[in-house]
Amino acid sequence: MGDVTEVGDVTGPGPRSGPGSPLGLHRVLEPAGVLPQAAWKLDPRPSLWPDEVRVAVERLNLDAASFRQLREATGGAAADMRAAVCPIVAERGKMQNPVTGSGGMLTGVVEEAGPCSPLGLAAGDRIATLVSLSLTPLVITDGLAGWDGRSEQVPGRGHAILFGRSIATVLPPDLPGPLALAVLDVAGAPALTSRVVSRAAAGPGPSAPGTPDGPGAPDRPGAPGGPVVAIIGAGGKSGSLSAAAAREAGAGRVIGVVPAEAEGAALRAAGLVDEVVVADARDPVALAAAVRGAGGPAAVTVVCVDVPGCEGGAVLSTADGGTVVFFSMATSFTAAALGAEGVAADVTMLIGNGYVPGHAQLALDLVRREPGVRGLFEARISEETRGNRPGLEEK
Amino acid sequence: MGDVTEVGDVTGPGPRSGPGSPLGLHRVLEPAGVLPQAAWKLDPRPSLWPDEVRVAVERLNLDAASFRQLREATGGAAADMRAAVCPIVAERGKMQNPVTGSGGMLTGVVEEAGPCSPLGLAAGDRIATLVSLSLTPLVITDGLAGWDGRSEQVPGRGHAILFGRSIATVLPPDLPGPLALAVLDVAGAPALTSRVVSRAAAGPGPSAPGTPDGPGAPDRPGAPGGPVVAIIGAGGKSGSLSAAAAREAGAGRVIGVVPAEAEGAALRAAGLVDEVVVADARDPVALAAAVRGAGGPAAVTVVCVDVPGCEGGAVLSTADGGTVVFFSMATSFTAAALGAEGVAADVTMLIGNGYVPGHAQLALDLVRREPGVRGLFEARISEETRGNRPGLEEK
Repeated sequence: MGDVTEVGDVTGPGPRSGPGSPLGLHRVLEPAGVLPQAAWKLDPRPSLWPDEVRVAVERLNLDAASFRQLREATGGAAADMRAAVCPIVAERGKMQNPVTGSGGMLTGVVEEAGPCSPLGLAAGDRIATLVSLSLTPLVITDGLAGWDGRSEQVPGRGHAILFGRSIATVLPPDLPGPLALAVLDVAGAPALTSRVVSRAAAGPGPSAPGTPDGPGAPDRPGAPGGPVVAIIGAGGKSGSLSAAAAREAGAGRVIGVVPAEAEGAALRAAGLVDEVVVADARDPVALAAAVRGAGGPAAVTVVCVDVPGCEGGAVLSTADGGTVVFFSMATSFTAAALGAEGVAADVTMLIGNGYVPGHAQLALDLVRREPGVRGLFEARISEETRGNRPGLEEK
Repeated sequence: MGDVTEVGDVTGPGPRSGPGSPLGLHRVLEPAGVLPQAAWKLDPRPSLWPDEVRVAVERLNLDAASFRQLREATGGAAADMRAAVCPIVAERGKMQNPVTGSGGMLTGVVEEAGPCSPLGLAAGDRIATLVSLSLTPLVITDGLAGWDGRSEQVPGRGHAILFGRSIATVLPPDLPGPLALAVLDVAGAPALTSRVVSRAAAGPGPSAPGTPDGPGAPDRPGAPGGPVVAIIGAGGKSGSLSAAAAREAGAGRVIGVVPAEAEGAALRAAGLVDEVVVADARDPVALAAAVRGAGGPAAVTVVCVDVPGCEGGAVLSTADGGTVVFFSMATSFTAAALGAEGVAADVTMLIGNGYVPGHAQLALDLVRREPGVRGLFEARISEETRGNRPGLEEK
């Protein structure tokens, strides 16, 4: 720390000397030696290591589990929400909800790209980060004064840092910013769903019966013989994208589970699934019965709700030899592992990895191609903007 | 609850009228409607529903993460350990550590099998349960007076209940009881490892270079071209079994990671792995460097340590397109999901399901076939009996 450009230089940007770590290890303040995601506290100072990028923040997108926790803990009033989030960022140097452990992502404009940054970004690019806020050094300078506390999308001013191995994408010019941000936030879900359903469609395993007919038959039935896919929380953002991805990947039948009839009607109108069922995902017996009644059990079950306690129902809704993909940040590792064992269920359980190569493009293309997905997203964003969230986020 | 055999009948066993649930839902006291694993409190009364089995407890086997938490919280003295465990069982009607959420399993003798039980057990059978204690109705009647607090294996008296869909196995006559119990406790790990490594060996993906030679070459090198497998915590119970399973399933190279040189020497002597490396699994950079230095990154990484904070290192030790299997009950779902995203790692992450068909037989056979595995288990059991645990459980 004898370097003049480092010591005490916490305001002015400027190149650092010395090697940084593409993982951002040099930004970890405590505890020492862990990755930025696992750290309690990061160094968010604006001056850059040679392979870093600094972004002027425009908007944070808190992840659904974190937003729900904050709203329930504070009551949701704007001042209380700001008073919850700002100290977290100030203390930790990143926006990582200490209760959920999760973050979200952000959009902004590149202010400066270090000379050795491999990300291919230049000053002036409007981008979205595709790594979690839980590992992104962040400073907020405006107290989030423009946030009404009602939306996961949080207007704000400040800066964020991207590492050499971070990922980011230039925002598409053809989609409104809030829509693109909402889509990119959950882009890992449809990408991994697509991969898992493709594999299930290619291999042996439980599959759907032939094309259903008669009353209630879907307009666009799935591939005959393709796997049955259940999307728990199909009316939400990650859920609707995953439903569309499952169908494109060869699902024989897509079952969408929602918690309330109003959401069911919207999902039905969107035409993304073959069958809509209303069930409480936290009630394992009711959920499994609903999925079975709709053509299950599923070969692939995708959990996209943001409340705890859905592990058992997801396992019971899945056929032996099937796969459960947990995207919800409210998932308990122990509950899933022991819950499956407890019912002697031979299911493969995946931790939803937010990174799959090509995920941003896949998600944006789904929204461009599928008016049903776009409609659900726009309705959500509009509801959030109005502070009217009758169906809650994804459950 | 108007049935005479039910109301207030908390001591004498006797058949219940009315249908039970094979999942044990009828034993859930609170909260209503959840599965027994997710319940706060179960009804452990000894009288049986028609498809249940009652077992006279002989020995509990606390899972490693729970035992470690209890020891660290209490200091580990016998009276303090008993004073921690007994109230949990009395209050919850099951042994589920409220901090870790995990349980363990037990051995005992069948007292009574309900007339509709599908488990094929009869009074007098000496069995081990293969479902977690976290969902097994349990009463302890001796205050665990025979437990010295030093071992995960806890002698005790009382009874436990198995449901229609529970799984249990008759203890093998050819293996000592404590050995069989220890093996069966972690039987899911080698079974799932075997499945994942077999698939990796059959499909495309990162694989080991040809058979190594020169100084330090293993006696039994892996299959040339087979996948590189890293076992984090290879000196422990689940780790040593998983290492043996990986080799049998076609691993090209098995790298065993242990936290200390003493454990490394024991693992080397056991001959289960091709390379032993000493590293702190909580230090992601050190762990990844160690695995790479030993022939990695791994196509399959198996996490068998019982301390938190190993997610990042496991991900960094794994090649793109590879798989991480998390068996540790100390795994954080969020840390794994966001950690992988945070370093843009395209790895598949599995929640270790404790149930895989045939897992008990596979694990017992590995111990019978592999003197190295048996030796490590016997040393662990002996250390625990002496209260001497220099290397800790699995880390």
